[in-house]
Amino acid sequence: MSDIVIAGIGQIQVGEHWEIGIRDLAFLVIRAALRDALGIQPQALIVGNMLAPNLSKQSHLGTLLADFAGLTGIEAITVEAAEASGGMALRQGYLAVKSGWVDAVLVVGVEKMTDQVGSGVETALATTMDSDFEAVHGVTTASQAALLMQRYLHEYSIPPDGLAGFALTAHANGAGNPNAMFRKPISLDTYRKAEPISPPLNLFDAAPNADGAAALILTRRDRLPKDWPHPPIALLASATASDALALHDRRDPLFFEALAIATRRALEQAKITLEQIDFLEYHDAFSIYAALSLEASGFAERGQGCRLAAEGHIARDGDLPCATMGGLKARGFAGGATGVYQAVEAALQLRGQAGACQVKPARVGMIQSLGGPASTAVVHILSNQIE
Amino acid sequence: MSDIVIAGIGQIQVGEHWEIGIRDLAFLVIRAALRDALGIQPQALIVGNMLAPNLSKQSHLGTLLADFAGLTGIEAITVEAAEASGGMALRQGYLAVKSGWVDAVLVVGVEKMTDQVGSGVETALATTMDSDFEAVHGVTTASQAALLMQRYLHEYSIPPDGLAGFALTAHANGAGNPNAMFRKPISLDTYRKAEPISPPLNLFDAAPNADGAAALILTRRDRLPKDWPHPPIALLASATASDALALHDRRDPLFFEALAIATRRALEQAKITLEQIDFLEYHDAFSIYAALSLEASGFAERGQGCRLAAEGHIARDGDLPCATMGGLKARGFAGGATGVYQAVEAALQLRGQAGACQVKPARVGMIQSLGGPASTAVVHILSNQIE
Repeated sequence: MSDIVIAGIGQIQVGEHWEIGIRDLAFLVIRAALRDALGIQPQALIVGNMLAPNLSKQSHLGTLLADFAGLTGIEAITVEAAEASGGMALRQGYLAVKSGWVDAVLVVGVEKMTDQVGSGVETALATTMDSDFEAVHGVTTASQAALLMQRYLHEYSIPPDGLAGFALTAHANGAGNPNAMFRKPISLDTYRKAEPISPPLNLFDAAPNADGAAALILTRRDRLPKDWPHPPIALLASATASDALALHDRRDPLFFEALAIATRRALEQAKITLEQIDFLEYHDAFSIYAALSLEASGFAERGQGCRLAAEGHIARDGDLPCATMGGLKARGFAGGATGVYQAVEAALQLRGQAGACQVKPARVGMIQSLGGPASTAVVHILSNQIE
Repeated sequence: MSDIVIAGIGQIQVGEHWEIGIRDLAFLVIRAALRDALGIQPQALIVGNMLAPNLSKQSHLGTLLADFAGLTGIEAITVEAAEASGGMALRQGYLAVKSGWVDAVLVVGVEKMTDQVGSGVETALATTMDSDFEAVHGVTTASQAALLMQRYLHEYSIPPDGLAGFALTAHANGAGNPNAMFRKPISLDTYRKAEPISPPLNLFDAAPNADGAAALILTRRDRLPKDWPHPPIALLASATASDALALHDRRDPLFFEALAIATRRALEQAKITLEQIDFLEYHDAFSIYAALSLEASGFAERGQGCRLAAEGHIARDGDLPCATMGGLKARGFAGGATGVYQAVEAALQLRGQAGACQVKPARVGMIQSLGGPASTAVVHILSNQIE
């Protein structure tokens, strides 16, 4: 089976970190991951970030973070694929070790979104869409998701609160995660009374923009110290695909084709079926993304994704626990750090260290990182079942 | 010897392309590279770009360009390492094929810098420096280079026009390159009379910011069609290293340590010595960078880099032709596209298709891509001498 393992993890609570900058956020999680890796030294640093050139006036993050973390001289790059930047950084790290290019690689996802005034974040986020044909008309990521949601509710005759289950599940799970931004469960009544952001999408249909960073170290299994104290967590699969960037260029806007392709590729690589997935970290930037992700991946029929949420299937004790540490909705959406958070959370589940969020069984987990409405999709499969 | 070859190349003249946008620039060179590759189809697209999130209000370029070029569905990412983004994209492409991850990869460098008014470009370029400790004080890439140049002239008692040879050589070579922005040789008198930009750095010490795009396709040698009409160009080596991002954090600002490390690594990989390099494409964003690059790489002693230019060694008929198609100075500086231009130009030299710019012999070429004052350095060695 796969010989690429996660040897160290680090994360910081997602939230509004007014007191520190983007380099500090990254430093804290790099230090944590290096400590957790018990001295394994990476030869390369791959940074996943989506908005720092705009929001932090800082590009060249690879070299900056290597330098600031005391790793000066190391190979360092930044990978960008919009909201999927973290997932794509993980994939580049996987390929770096898999190819023999390096023995160990440090993958860092980091984003600082809360230092902005006015519409700075929305404007920056709009650069991830088709700038000339979408953003130019004032479309934001939220209003685009609202269009998708509206169409979905109409197409499948779903009531306005039909997607509530995603937010309820996320907040219920986030309550148990010390690194989550929001740690309070919400009720259906709260969801129903929430302010609309872009109708029919309300406050609880959208993940909060926040600051955060997560890091992990990947290495080959034979490089783990002999007295390694954790169950080794293997990356069984890493796959990605792209779609038309602009929503209006899609054959079927309600089908996340890139995610469907990437999921299929990942399952083939891991030589498993969907039924063997014990838990799923989807990219619930908006609740409609969660519904469409379940459908594109094959976990639900078209138009039935929201039922998995409404009927409890995705709850911690359901048959497919999702957003187990709160997802983007309750853990918080820290831009390009997201995909790395998902991997760190999946590793915690597979190590049995997820505390109040622990799902059982936790043998195989899938994580999905999306850029835009699945314009880019990156899928990884992780497991503690190593032959 | 190396089994990774350049199977197709494409470029557009560097300049002010007011009439088209960033996606069009990229499309034109992707089409050219695909045609030149005689039907070899890439499975992944790697984009090198440094400033589009700021200057074109467009991130997520990997997926956008894949989509716009009719390659929807393909794996697509953007790699950023400041001015070295193009070289780093080439390196990621090299690793992608070398690792067996894909059979063929499309590497595109693209930048659109001339749509800005006022100080937009300088502000954007400043994001590549240490934003909190350099850019915040108003330092620009040019004024930073001026500091380096001032120190260099002082340290080695070099007269104010001591670096003129770099601009003269670049413009002499650019005159023969149909894709160069500037195609007129300049005289020493012209150099001496040029306006200062940031003293002692004058107009001819700085490469012009411009629009441009270049593309190439990498594949394994055994994937080339049997009737391949060109000499195969192999990538013998690909290496990179980083340094402190901020100039004030360097032990010795006049030594490009990351470039020294990357050059040494590349030579080791290629199993050759400096003497076997027939021509060099250095990163002459500023003439002082060219001098320091020659010194860090080992082509010249400390303080002697400028003599290689003054004495004709780097001229087309010298013993180490440099900037053979005009370099950044005369071909033009198209940001993150630069490293890919260098590779395309080196391929033309090695194919014997460099026209008026052809150097002889052209068996082994080295290209150096720098981010900042060698905060990031990427070095590749190319050759048509394949065993």
